Amino acid sequence: MMVIVSYDVNTKDTAGKKRLRHVAKICQDYGQRVQNSVFECLVNNMQLEILKNKLLSEIDEEYDSLYFFNIGSRYHNKIFSYGCKTIVDLDGPVIF
Amino acid sequence: MMVIVSYDVNTKDTAGKKRLRHVAKICQDYGQRVQNSVFECLVNNMQLEILKNKLLSEIDEEYDSLYFFNIGSRYHNKIFSYGCKTIVDLDGPVIF
Repeated sequence: MMVIVSYDVNTKDTAGKKRLRHVAKICQDYGQRVQNSVFECLVNNMQLEILKNKLLSEIDEEYDSLYFFNIGSRYHNKIFSYGCKTIVDLDGPVIF
Repeated sequence: MMVIVSYDVNTKDTAGKKRLRHVAKICQDYGQRVQNSVFECLVNNMQLEILKNKLLSEIDEEYDSLYFFNIGSRYHNKIFSYGCKTIVDLDGPVIF
């Protein structure tokens, strides 16, 4: 299923900047960045739980915000993008 | 239906800062800000088309990025939020 992960990490101090790097790094292991703090993650239920726990252990819930939008497995006609980011179709053919 | 609108507007110049303000203002007319550049918009198909056209007329597609994630009408168990933003249930009871 396709899950959109979106986060706002408060970077007013070095601890926040570190949390931001870690959160982005974790998301990169599970999906593709489509905007500065928005990732498309193609995951199953177990992977989603692991991803959630990893991210929750990183953010500071007093200052940061984390969203998961579950779009399901039939997502191709539910995502529309415009503008300067080019998207790789995560489960499309990989051409070498 | 619930549509997540997410944008990255390049604010390297005053024109970009102006586009950002306009994009945010348009989204506020259709929904609720849940993160810095992420809105939850409860819209029908016609409203979505109007919203899309308004936003596309504002952004500069060479520098900015705009995403629409359509989560559908049964969205309550598809959105998970954690951290410091409190959410108003857009179609929940309004209590005075």
